[in-house]
Parts: sequence; structure tokens; C-alpha cells
Amino acid sequence: MCGVFGIAGNSEAAKLVYLGLHALQHRGQESAGIVVTHGDGRQFHRHVGQGLVADVFTESILDRLEGDRAVGHVRYSTAGGNDISNAQPLMAETLKGPLVIGHNGNLTNALRLREELEHQGAIFRSRADTEVILHLFARSRAPRVADRLREALAQVEGAYSLLIMTKDSIVGVRDPSGFRPLVLGKIRDAYVLASESSVFDLLEGELLREVEPGEMIILENGGMRSERLVHAPEALERRCIFELIYFARPNSRVFDHDVYVTRHELGRQLAREAPVEADIVIPVPDSGVSAALGYAEEAGLPFRHGLLRSHYVGRTFIEPAQAIRHFGVRLKLAAVRSILADKRVVVVDDSIVRGTTSRKIVSMLRAAGAKEVHLRISSPPTRSPCYYGIDTPTKEELIAAQQDVEGIRKYVAADSLAYLSVEGLHAQVGDERGPRQKFCNACFTGEYPAGNIPEELRPNSHVGSRFD
Amino acid sequence: MCGVFGIAGNSEAAKLVYLGLHALQHRGQESAGIVVTHGDGRQFHRHVGQGLVADVFTESILDRLEGDRAVGHVRYSTAGGNDISNAQPLMAETLKGPLVIGHNGNLTNALRLREELEHQGAIFRSRADTEVILHLFARSRAPRVADRLREALAQVEGAYSLLIMTKDSIVGVRDPSGFRPLVLGKIRDAYVLASESSVFDLLEGELLREVEPGEMIILENGGMRSERLVHAPEALERRCIFELIYFARPNSRVFDHDVYVTRHELGRQLAREAPVEADIVIPVPDSGVSAALGYAEEAGLPFRHGLLRSHYVGRTFIEPAQAIRHFGVRLKLAAVRSILADKRVVVVDDSIVRGTTSRKIVSMLRAAGAKEVHLRISSPPTRSPCYYGIDTPTKEELIAAQQDVEGIRKYVAADSLAYLSVEGLHAQVGDERGPRQKFCNACFTGEYPAGNIPEELRPNSHVGSRFD
Amino acid sequence: MCGVFGIAGNSEAAKLVYLGLHALQHRGQESAGIVVTHGDGRQFHRHVGQGLVADVFTESILDRLEGDRAVGHVRYSTAGGNDISNAQPLMAETLKGPLVIGHNGNLTNALRLREELEHQGAIFRSRADTEVILHLFARSRAPRVADRLREALAQVEGAYSLLIMTKDSIVGVRDPSGFRPLVLGKIRDAYVLASESSVFDLLEGELLREVEPGEMIILENGGMRSERLVHAPEALERRCIFELIYFARPNSRVFDHDVYVTRHELGRQLAREAPVEADIVIPVPDSGVSAALGYAEEAGLPFRHGLLRSHYVGRTFIEPAQAIRHFGVRLKLAAVRSILADKRVVVVDDSIVRGTTSRKIVSMLRAAGAKEVHLRISSPPTRSPCYYGIDTPTKEELIAAQQDVEGIRKYVAADSLAYLSVEGLHAQVGDERGPRQKFCNACFTGEYPAGNIPEELRPNSHVGSRFD
Amino acid sequence: MCGVFGIAGNSEAAKLVYLGLHALQHRGQESAGIVVTHGDGRQFHRHVGQGLVADVFTESILDRLEGDRAVGHVRYSTAGGNDISNAQPLMAETLKGPLVIGHNGNLTNALRLREELEHQGAIFRSRADTEVILHLFARSRAPRVADRLREALAQVEGAYSLLIMTKDSIVGVRDPSGFRPLVLGKIRDAYVLASESSVFDLLEGELLREVEPGEMIILENGGMRSERLVHAPEALERRCIFELIYFARPNSRVFDHDVYVTRHELGRQLAREAPVEADIVIPVPDSGVSAALGYAEEAGLPFRHGLLRSHYVGRTFIEPAQAIRHFGVRLKLAAVRSILADKRVVVVDDSIVRGTTSRKIVSMLRAAGAKEVHLRISSPPTRSPCYYGIDTPTKEELIAAQQDVEGIRKYVAADSLAYLSVEGLHAQVGDERGPRQKFCNACFTGEYPAGNIPEELRPNSHVGSRFD
Repeated sequence: MCGVFGIAGNSEAAKLVYLGLHALQHRGQESAGIVVTHGDGRQFHRHVGQGLVADVFTESILDRLEGDRAVGHVRYSTAGGNDISNAQPLMAETLKGPLVIGHNGNLTNALRLREELEHQGAIFRSRADTEVILHLFARSRAPRVADRLREALAQVEGAYSLLIMTKDSIVGVRDPSGFRPLVLGKIRDAYVLASESSVFDLLEGELLREVEPGEMIILENGGMRSERLVHAPEALERRCIFELIYFARPNSRVFDHDVYVTRHELGRQLAREAPVEADIVIPVPDSGVSAALGYAEEAGLPFRHGLLRSHYVGRTFIEPAQAIRHFGVRLKLAAVRSILADKRVVVVDDSIVRGTTSRKIVSMLRAAGAKEVHLRISSPPTRSPCYYGIDTPTKEELIAAQQDVEGIRKYVAADSLAYLSVEGLHAQVGDERGPRQKFCNACFTGEYPAGNIPEELRPNSHVGSRFD
Repeated sequence: MCGVFGIAGNSEAAKLVYLGLHALQHRGQESAGIVVTHGDGRQFHRHVGQGLVADVFTESILDRLEGDRAVGHVRYSTAGGNDISNAQPLMAETLKGPLVIGHNGNLTNALRLREELEHQGAIFRSRADTEVILHLFARSRAPRVADRLREALAQVEGAYSLLIMTKDSIVGVRDPSGFRPLVLGKIRDAYVLASESSVFDLLEGELLREVEPGEMIILENGGMRSERLVHAPEALERRCIFELIYFARPNSRVFDHDVYVTRHELGRQLAREAPVEADIVIPVPDSGVSAALGYAEEAGLPFRHGLLRSHYVGRTFIEPAQAIRHFGVRLKLAAVRSILADKRVVVVDDSIVRGTTSRKIVSMLRAAGAKEVHLRISSPPTRSPCYYGIDTPTKEELIAAQQDVEGIRKYVAADSLAYLSVEGLHAQVGDERGPRQKFCNACFTGEYPAGNIPEELRPNSHVGSRFD
Repeated sequence: MCGVFGIAGNSEAAKLVYLGLHALQHRGQESAGIVVTHGDGRQFHRHVGQGLVADVFTESILDRLEGDRAVGHVRYSTAGGNDISNAQPLMAETLKGPLVIGHNGNLTNALRLREELEHQGAIFRSRADTEVILHLFARSRAPRVADRLREALAQVEGAYSLLIMTKDSIVGVRDPSGFRPLVLGKIRDAYVLASESSVFDLLEGELLREVEPGEMIILENGGMRSERLVHAPEALERRCIFELIYFARPNSRVFDHDVYVTRHELGRQLAREAPVEADIVIPVPDSGVSAALGYAEEAGLPFRHGLLRSHYVGRTFIEPAQAIRHFGVRLKLAAVRSILADKRVVVVDDSIVRGTTSRKIVSMLRAAGAKEVHLRISSPPTRSPCYYGIDTPTKEELIAAQQDVEGIRKYVAADSLAYLSVEGLHAQVGDERGPRQKFCNACFTGEYPAGNIPEELRPNSHVGSRFD
Repeated sequence: MCGVFGIAGNSEAAKLVYLGLHALQHRGQESAGIVVTHGDGRQFHRHVGQGLVADVFTESILDRLEGDRAVGHVRYSTAGGNDISNAQPLMAETLKGPLVIGHNGNLTNALRLREELEHQGAIFRSRADTEVILHLFARSRAPRVADRLREALAQVEGAYSLLIMTKDSIVGVRDPSGFRPLVLGKIRDAYVLASESSVFDLLEGELLREVEPGEMIILENGGMRSERLVHAPEALERRCIFELIYFARPNSRVFDHDVYVTRHELGRQLAREAPVEADIVIPVPDSGVSAALGYAEEAGLPFRHGLLRSHYVGRTFIEPAQAIRHFGVRLKLAAVRSILADKRVVVVDDSIVRGTTSRKIVSMLRAAGAKEVHLRISSPPTRSPCYYGIDTPTKEELIAAQQDVEGIRKYVAADSLAYLSVEGLHAQVGDERGPRQKFCNACFTGEYPAGNIPEELRPNSHVGSRFD
């Protein structure tokens, strides 16, 4: 997962990108970067670094990033990827001038494209699939930026919400399936393209609308215009339902759904599907908070903060040699004995991935006196890996791909365990044309979108990273 | 405010102090320090630094802090105090050997004592009132540590929960009024003295009991014994009620009250005292969360997270020249439009100090669509400064010292404003002998404890900092 | 200017490269980098950073750079080039696997090649001309590394001493003119390729020989073999004479000349060509030391250290608002009054570039009491820019391109000024076939080597950086 | 060893101190600090840190150090002393206001005074003997600063050149024996007190004169006046001869001797005393440079730079596991084979302490081809530890205290070894009243100055550090 933010037409462009990236920090903590240019596009300044936005950029660095047009990127930590050459936005020089790109998503045919490009003599400087787009774009002979982009993206499959900056323009584009979000807004007179609408809460801006799946928004000469990437039938739309369940900030409006309201409703639905005799409902903070409140309300049970989140997570801590049980979870969460003691507790989380954290949480709740622990998950079992940009582990590591619900319950040692049903999920998230019309739910169903099967799943595919 | 943590009898003493200080990080973010020694007390190692515990200590620093006995300290930021010489624990060499001291609290006769000591030739290396204790202790001729400490503390007035480490022992002591908390516990076989019981949740330890007001706990030769500091009548006990309202972690047990439960009950009481027609109840996170939930339950109104707290607060952010309104608050809090729009909102906080933040919050809620904003405060108006260790501003800056409730309501621009009554507070917090028997509530009532009037309030007092 | 160091066959390859780069630190202080791999070439680890070798690499970083084959690079500061994407070694993935390259030199047809490559769809990630070689190499279809390299280098003109690392081998190659140095040696059983022989003094290694102009040294399978890049006639050899005059470390053996001895002889020759009545001879440290000693000996005058070099140069210093005259030079050099007072002083330096530093030095010497100041330069006037890797300014900024010797003398305000003659230079540096046979002296004569005219000087050339 | 610098009457006082400390950096690299105040002495700002001046102070730190009066200090690394609480200038608050002190030297009765003070209730925050002076000064009842200082210093013995800053004044004082240097000068209209005159070369200031042994210079109200500390007979003067031999910068004027000239003359004297048949003379850089040149001139032998000093010393380097012989020396020095091969070499250094470095140098010279190595030392054998501020090892570690010259020669494996005689030394360094009149040469003779015997050497002394 990643976050992107671009702005055209503000003399403090880099500073606004910097703050916008801060508001998108939950979408990626590994690296942050900004590229800025002036109206004439003659000078491009780039600064990227590893770590949080606040640590990567200092006042003197921001002062040097002069310009009125800028794009920025925050990048999520993925295994083995702590190499600065993967930090985005990527920048390259091409025949048509400098080209800058920031990418949220994941291409499903990147390895094949990469090999083809290498056969044509292309060289790669990073492991990022994003670099493939850079090459395809640079190879296009089309005179207009939008056409070059159209030509390049016609060859790629998968998920992408992209920001492209050239010497004349910023272009925002979403793939035809619309896996990842991208919104258009304004801050004063300047147009803004960003991963989530929550940026406007911090920056006093205004959300105009979602960028449509398959739409290109071109910011140029102080104006904004829209073009279609391809004339894709709407049936192809496959928004990532996990953005609503877990990833986006609760104050964002994503895919025309209010995130907080949606999660609250999923909690209510879960309470209807999987009620239980209990004394209190507690969330796993922060991801389970909205759903737990919905569950408690629907169930008529008291809502309590039985697990406290540390204010200082995100920092590395050194463990004593005499190991503390569940050290990692304890650093993040503390169980509140005065709330839990002798109580039958419903604990609500948004999902279970490997099961190890849930197991530790159940154990902590019992150690703090809980008499019964009933785990409720506000989404269906996560059974299949995501190939469209969410950093899920392999199928082997996904506990729900390996075991049934009772098996998982035994593993996490809860008194009961229930997930939201796929139907229950779509009863809350969907549209009038049918629940699964607009959303990708492959992580729950394994039904990967037709025409967008990842390379790894295709017959005769031999896929593997050669470059580490 | 500050936090202290000491441990005797664990070969990884410094690492456990480091983690204990992390669990007390909410009590002070300006500086952190640890002093460690071996059983024979021949080598003392000290490391202090400015910033968070995780930033002050690295693995290699911790590795060098070898020893089985250690005390640590986290220090709150006070105006002008960003000088490393104020960082605690303080350490000095005396005739009787090294002396280490960590202090939570505030002495009310420090300036007078300091002047007397200076007249006797003493020199001061910091502005910390704690240094006065160091001098008094060093001047005592008594052979036993406990007696020297008794002699020294007989001269000081005010609030102190202290940890003292000498070459033989760690001593924990609370002033006879017991303003600030201090608890005794165990981690495996090692005795622990700490500001709050929440440390045991992280470190898998066990709370034994509160250190009593006026009690000295002496950890020596692997054992623990208790002595009285003075034979103080219990009537003098003046526990800081603000620890329960705001300061302590919700999972702590402080002054024999569960913090979370107490705050929840204060919210309920507030709802009974100051009900209002509304649609939802929201907290100001994180301080108002428990009380808001109590309020909502008692009022029978839905509880919602209408204000979101940023995960990345605590870092400095650079503001654009085109100022963003309420920039500081926006960085910390985001109003959730989908929850607030067209709603009559009760917003619950624990206290109002200057009123400026409350005013910004009310403005943000209205900007996010709230139709009415009713502010409810889960404590009485803060009318008088604290001289016992809470970092309140001067009387001139305390809005409730300058205006009545209606004046404050107008300033913060809320539709209604209500505080909890002093009686309502003590109905929840107190003991069988009468509510105000055990607690100091001077910040609400201006009734400073007899025998503990701060220098600033005494007639003919001329007080002023000469050293900055 | 830059420095390169590669080693094959030592289990601590990265640590030896790190120390080797330290010994080459005088060749580049802007950035440093190392890429390391194992015998099987499956994992490549790269670390680059800005600043000195000692600051870029920490113990933990070196520990992570595991492998037995490694190349490293130090890069000189060039105007505007403080972008981490220019830091070398560059690394790319190609169809044939990872490709690593470290470059000392400068290509004279890089912009044209770059344009051609961009026309074929190539994209560039840095401004380094080195990236052109990466592309050309990747485009070659030849099966052997040496052949791919031969094909790639057949297209480039200019100066290059390169280290290339692939999954199987390290290749060191010098351009047919041999502009920049490269030597072959051994450290225990491991072959080493390095810019200068001085690395063996630090690392207890052994210099085997110069890599010949146009020679490729291939380290593979534990062995070493030599191939010719092209069958170039030896007449083309054009070693950079400035390496001997200024750039290389005095303890290096470069182009079969001992650097210290050569500089000493140039000083003697200068004394014969340009004697003067004087009391003492002083060097501008460190570059003028050897020549000044030679001058003093030949002239029979006392040699004195009349200018002292600060031990702590290389660090940034903050200047007071009340400017100190010649602040920059004063930080680096101090004039010793007790040596200079009332003396007629000969001051020897290796070259004059813009003249500003010489002017400040003359002024400092007079301020310290020198009665007369006679400036002697141990090379001919620097009249033409270098296009082969020395970071000289443009012709407009070279004072000797704009003024005659008397004009320069007036500008620097010396009592007399003399340069070494071109003939005098070659009397000391050259071979039996004639002095200019082996060396490039274009900076003094403007006679750029036939077949290697830089793009900037070719008719109809339109050259300019588009990417900054 | 340490360096001090103070200035009164310049609006950029801190910046000038910072640059002055840079010019004194050779006197101490462990820590650096500055304290600054305004004319009215109401605000004192202090910043100290570990490391070099350039690293301890940033532009923003210097900007915060506002004031027109400031003192600074650089501190030499002593064993185990890497504790920030030892960093100077020390600052304390006393009855008479803030007191700041920076000390160069070493007190010989500090431990006894410390014990007495502790008996009177004083506490110590550092291990620095300087803190004793702080206490004595604070205890004085005298109304004038000069009298308080006089009273305090009447009790201490040993070496001190001190800068004291109070709210009204800066006082510079040298002990009656004048062990350590201190000079008075001006930068524009501001008076300056500094350890060495070389600071004026950097700062465009002017040396006025030496502060006399036993003299106090008081900078107050824009003016300067002198008082005597005690009416000491001049016969007591004991300037540290090692400042001239090794410690001071060659461009300094110390004790009315030009440092460079003195060292050069010592080299000449050495050549007269200990001639040898040889081909070249080389110095151990940088300390032996001046003497080596004098030796070469007197001997009529060529002077050569046969050992090169690295430009980048002072940084920590990581050694490979496969140890490199003499790694530490190799990092600092490289032997130049082209100069040394087949030569009979005289190598000149200023002193031998433990002998280990000399042994490594001789070995390196032989490895680089030297046929014979004749070691010449430009001072007498260092037989006794210094108790007056030079960081010499204990008598057990001083090779010349344990062995005769022939024994040392064997240990360092030189073909011959000779030291300068004590008579030869004083023939160059002394005054008309007799050579040893003005100087302390106890390190060579063991004759510690009467009335200034260090505690360690007094009968019945029991001395030991209790505080580490």
C-alpha cells in the first residue's frame, strides 16, 4: 500500500505535499518523497528518504524544494524492500524531458513486461513494478502526454492509481477496474489529486469528486480536464473492499462510502449474524473501533476500551534477554484489568491474517481476568492473497486459507469465533446493481477479476524475483 | 509531571527501567535518564538525554548500562526548561558516596531552601528543585540512609515521590500528604518502585501495593522494608485528584482507584448533572474518551468517534506561509464529517485550561457540519494553579480563574457548556471519611492544604527565578 | 575525479573496499558507495551515501554487506550534483542479471549517446555519463561479459577507468588512451583493482602492475586474465599529466612514475627555470609541498612551513556576520608570522585555477610580515578546461585563459610570478619516445587528443544539460 | 589538556568563541562548550556537547546563543571521561548569581579539597577538579569577584589558566607558576582571553600580551584591568616546556617564544648533539616536522616527507577481522617507498611516550625499504608523569621511566636512538636568569616544583578516585 498526493498551482507546493503526505502517513511508513518543479518545468528537485514524513523532510530541505507544482509519495514497508532506490516518486529523464511517477497499487504482469523490456535493452534500477510504467511511457512516440500514458497503460494489468508529472503537467489516472482510490479536490485555487479525501481535513481543502476508474485527470496551464484511459465497460469496476474495511482513514470518503459509517454498519451486521451472551464489547484498537461500537449498539451491550493502544508505537524497542511473553503486542496494547476482570468479553477486530496477533490478544485478555473471550471479525475470512496492492502474506501463511473457522478458533484459543459473511459484507457495501458489481473481494472469495488474473496464477507461469 | 521507575535485583536492570520508562512515557516527554549500579555500588553509570525514551537510549547505550540495580526518570516539558542539566536522575558524589535521585512532584519552599543553602556556600548546577534535596541529604550527618533522608525531607514542603539510589540501596518515598503516586511491585524476584501500576502490564510484573503517604520503602540486600518518614496524622493526606481525572494511564490503579472506571463514572455523574438534548456524544481523544462513554451511557445517547487523533503526533511539523487555521489542532485531530453532519453534538473533555484548544475544537466541529455543539467537562472549572507538580499555567492564563462559565461558553463559542460539580466529583472520588479527606482539589477550589502553602502565596514572599 | 576499488576472493570484501575507499578519499568526498555479492552472484547488496567514507558506512551497515566480491566508488563534488541518484556504483538489472558499474573519468560523447538511447526508448535515472555505459552494455547481445563490454565501449569516447561487476565477475578496464589510472594488485590471495597503488600501503597488499590503456582485466572463478579492449596503437596513449602534478597521493606510483619524486623534480626544474633572490621557500600545503622542497634544494634556499594547514578542514563552518577577510582560506591555512616576518618569500603551489585563492594567500603572507612574495607554480598555466575527468572550471573562469602571466601576477598581487614551462614539465615527465607521447597535456596546451575531441568543441554541436 | 576562549563586548560573541575554539581544537577533541550572556547578565545560555566544535554546534544552536559576552572550552579526551557532565564550561548558580568556569590545567590538591568540601556538605556533579574551584568561589564572602577568586585560588595548588564569567564580568587568571598559557588580545573593540595567540590569525585579531603568571585580567564595563592574584616572587614561574615542544600550534607565540622557531632550533641542537651518517631526514608528521627540518639543515642532509599523514584522521574506522598489522598507525601514516627505498633514514619525532607507536613507525619504514633507521627525539626522555595538565600515562607505562636509551632503542628496533639533552633543551628555551628559571621540566627531570608537589607524591597520601 502507498499514498500519493499532487498539487498544481500553489507557490508552496512542496510544503502542501509534505503535509498531505503526513495526512496519508497511515498508507505507508517506509519511505517518503517529493518532486517539485516550476511552471516552466526547467528544474526538477527531488528528495526521498526512508522513514516517516516528519523525519525525511526538514525545514531546510523543504525550503530548497521550490516550485509551484509537486507530487509526493509514501511507501509501505514490504519484505526486503528497504532499499532507497525503491523510494518514490521515481524520476527519469526521457527524450521528451523529465518524467516523475508515484504509484499506489500493484501490476499483475510486471515481471513479464519487465522481461520483454529487458530483451529490448531496457535496464532497471529498482525492484518496483512502477519502473515498468516509466519505460513504457518513455518508449511511446505519441506527441501528447495523455496519449503516451494511454499507450503505456494499455500494456499493463493490475492495480494503479498513478500521479505522473512532466515538464508541463500533472496527470492522475486510475486503472479501469479502479482497485485503488484517487480523489480530486482543491486547496484554494490549486487542484489536488490525492489517495484519500482526509487530506482536505488537514489542509482546509475541498473534495470535488472521486477520479473515475479508467479516467485521466490532466492538470495543465492552471486548468483541469478529464479524458478516458480506455472505453472500459463499467462492469469491470473492482474497487478494493479492504480499503473500506481496514486501510483508509475513518474520516475519508472512499469509493463514495463514508469509511467510519461503513465500518460501524459492518459491526452492526456482524452483531446480527453472530450474537453472543456477553457482558461487554471491546475493540482491538485502532482498526476494530468503529465496528466494535456498531456491534455493541446492535447487541445492546456496553462498549468498553478494554485494550489501550500505546501513544508511542512505531518506534523500535529493545527487548530484555529474559523474554517477556507477547512482547511486541504488549508494547502496542495494554489490557485494562478493571474493565475485563470476571467479564464475558466480545472483542472485535477487522480481520485475522496469520492468527498470531489474535492469539496473543486472547491470551492477554484472559490474563487480565476475562472469563470468556468471544472474537468477532468484521469481514469474512481472508483466504486468498491480494495481488492488487495490499501487502498480504502468501496463501500458506493466511490462517483462513489453511483452516476452517473452528480450527482458527482453537488456534487463537477463543471461546467462540465468528466472521462476517460475504453476503453480510455486501449488504452494507455495494450498489443497486448488485453487491459485487463494484468491488473486488478476491481476498475473501478467491475470485480474481476476469481479465486481471495475476501472473502467479496463470498456467505455465514461471515467476520469481531475480533481483534482490 | 514526571515518572520514576526503580528496580533492585535483576541482572538486566537498565533494560527493565528503559521499558518501564516507556510505559510511563505519558508522564514526561522532554527528557529521559537511567542510572545503574552493581550490587557493590562501586561503579555508577548514568545516561540522560532529551526526547523520548526510545530515542534517548540505543542498544549499545543500554549494553553499557550494566548492573543489577537502577533508577530511571522521564521528565515533562516545562517552559524554558530544555537544558540537559535539568535531566534526571540527578547524580552527585558526597562524602558517603554517590547519590542518585529521581523526583516526581514540586517543592513549595524550594527557593527559600535554595537561598539558605547558597548562603552556606552551596552551588547549584540546575534549576530543578530536586537539587535542593540532594544538598540537604548530603549535609546530613546521620549514619543510616533512611535517617539522612528523614533529616533532609523534614525541611522540604510540597509534593514528592522520590527514588534515591546510594551505593547500597534504593529508597522510594512519598511525601506525608501523598500528592503524587508511587507503587511497589515485583518483577520476578526483583522489587520495583514505580509511578504507576501500568508498568506491570508491560513487564509481566505484579502490583503489591501503594507506597503510603509518608512511607519509605528501602530496597537493600535483596530485601524490602518499610519505615515512616514522619509520624504524620492521616488527615494530612492530599492525593492529587488530577491524576485520576487526566494524568494517569487508564489501565493504572492509582490511589486505590481504577483510573478507567473512575473516569467513566465521572462521565456518568456529569450526564446526571448536566443533561442536554442531543444526537450523539463524542470525546476529545484521548483524554475525554472514558468520561464521554460514561456520559453517553447515562444519557442514553449514541457514542461516536467524531474526532480522530493522528497516529503521528509528537513530531514537529513545518507550517506553510499561507497559514492553515487551527493548524496545531488539525495536525492532532480530524473531525469526521460523516458522523457530525447535521447532528446536535455533546463533546466531552476532561478539563479546560486556557480555552484556546476547546475554542478550536468547537470551531472544527461546526465546520464539519455539527448543528449544535454542547461542551461537557468531566471535572470542575480549573481555577487555581497547581504548586504540587502539575504543569498548569498561571492564574492569569487559566480561563476559569478569569471568567464564569457563561463567559467561557461565549469564548469557546459552544451552544452550551457545563462542568462537573466539586460535589459530583467527590461523590465518585473519595473515601468513607468524607470526600475531601484524602484528596487535594486545590486546582478547583483554591483551598491549598494547610501546612503546605506554596511560597508564592505566602505573605512577604519575594519569589522569582534568577537563573535561566 | 573519482576513485574506484574492487576485490574478488576475500570473505571480508566489503570491509576491504571500505578501507580501500578511505585510502582513495582524496579522489572524491561527495559520495561513497559499495556493492557486494557472493560467489554465486545471487544476492547483490548496495549501500551508497553522501559524505565521507567514514560517515557513510557504519559497522552495522558493513556487517550487512556480506560477500566475497565487491566494488566501491568515491565521487568528487561537482557543481549541483548533490543528488543521491548520482552516487556510484550504479546498479541495474538487465536481462543477463545484475550489472554494477563504478567509473572514474568523463565521456566526451555522452550527450549524443544519451539522446540516441532516449530515441530508442531508454530512460535515465541520473545525470551521470556513466549511466550511458550501463545502457550500452545492457543492449549488447554478445554472450560473454568481455564482449558485451567491448561492444559497449566501442561507442563511447573520452576517459574511463571502469570497474564492472556482474554475477560472475569483476572487470576492470581502461580506455585506449589511458587517461585515468588503474592498477592491479593483490591482498593475500585476492586480486584487487584500484585507482592508485597507495591503497596497498594501508591494506598490506602488493602492487602487481598498471592496467594497460585499452586493457580489460577479468577477475573470474578465482583467477585473472587479460584481454584487449581494441587493438589500439600505442601512439594514442594520453595519460593525464595532472594526476602526477596534483591529484594522486604522493605515495602512489602512477603511470610508472613515483608521484612524490616527480613533484620534487618539477620543483627543481622550476627553480632552474625561474630563480629569484629570496630568503625562504614555503609551500602551499599540501599540494605544493613536494615541489617547494625541490625548489628550495635546487635554489639553495631554506625550506620553511610558513603556511599551516588546519587539521579539521572538510567540515562546514559558520561565519560571523561581521565578515572575516578571506574567511575560507583562513579556516584552512594560517600564516606563521615568526617565519615570514621581514622575509623575501618564495611560495610554491602546483597550479592556479581562478586565481582567487592565490590572491588571498599572497595577501595573508604580506599581512604576516613577508617583505616580498614570489609565487612559483610547478606546472604550466592552466589555459584549457579538462574534458576527461578533472573538475576544472570553464575557459571563462580559468585566469590563465584570460590573462598573460603578468596580468595574473598583478591580479594575485605577487612581486613576481613564474610557471614551469611545458618543455620543463616534459623533461621530467615523459618517456624515451618523446615527452608528449604518453601524456595528455591539453589543460596546458589546448591540444586535445585527436580522435577524442569533446562534443562541446565539435562544429555544429548543440550541447546542454536538460536535466537538473 | 584543554583550550579556553573568552570575549567581552561583541554582539556575535558566541560565533567568535565558536571559531576561536575551532582554532584551539588541537588542544581538545572530546567535548566543546560555550556559555553566553548579555551585558546585564540576566540570561545565561549554555550549550555543551561531545565531539569536535564543528559537530557540537549547528547554525541554529549558535543563533540561540545570543549575547555579547561569552566563554568557551574544548576538552581533551582522558581515560573514562566520556561523560557529558564533565564537559566545560561548568555553570552553577550561587548566592551572587550565575558562575561559569572554563579550566585548562590540573589541580594537584583537588582530592583533598574535595573531601574537605564534602565534609562541609558540598556535593559534586562531575569528576572534574574544576568543580572544586566552583565550590571554593561560591563559599567566599568577599564582595568583589576578584577577591572571591583570590580567596578561592589561595587554597588550590597546581596548574590553572581559568576563565570565569559572572553576571558582570569575565576574569582570566593564570596560576602563580604560570604552568599553562593564556594570552590577552583584541578583536576589533572586544577584549579576548585565549589559550594561544593562534586564534588571532583566524579571527583577524591582535595579540596584546601574555597574561602573567599570578595575574588576573578583569573584563568589565567595556574595559580591562589587571590585578595580582598573590604577590608571588617571580622565581616560582614554571611554564610547561611541553607546550613549546609539542602541544601548542606552530603559529602560536607561547611564553614569549615563537613555537615554530623554537622547535626548529631544538632540531638543530639535536643534530649537533646526535649526528649520524645518513641519506635523508624525515619527520613523523605533524609533531616532528619543525624539528626534523632543523635537524636536516644543521646536518646538511636532505629533508623528505617519507611519512604521509592522512587527511581524514580523527574518524573511527572499522578494522577487518583479518587484522592488518599496525592498523591504527597505517590509517594515520603512510610510508613513501620511493623516498625510503635503500636509504639510511633519520626519523625525527618530538617525544616517545610508551614506545609502541615509534616501534610501529620504525617497522613501517623498514617495510618500505629503509636500509637504516635512526630515531632522533627533539626532547629529553619523558621519565615522569605530568600532574599539571598534560595527559601523560603513569610512570609504569612511560618507557623511558622503565628503560635506558639502549633498552628503548632495542624495543623500537631502530639502528640508533638519541634524545635531546636537558641542557640542550634549555640552551634553546629559557631566559637570561638561567634556563630552568621560567620552565617546568618535571616530565624530563622528575623535579616537581617546590610548593607544588602533587598529592600522589606526598608522604601518607591516600588517593584514589571513588567516583566513576
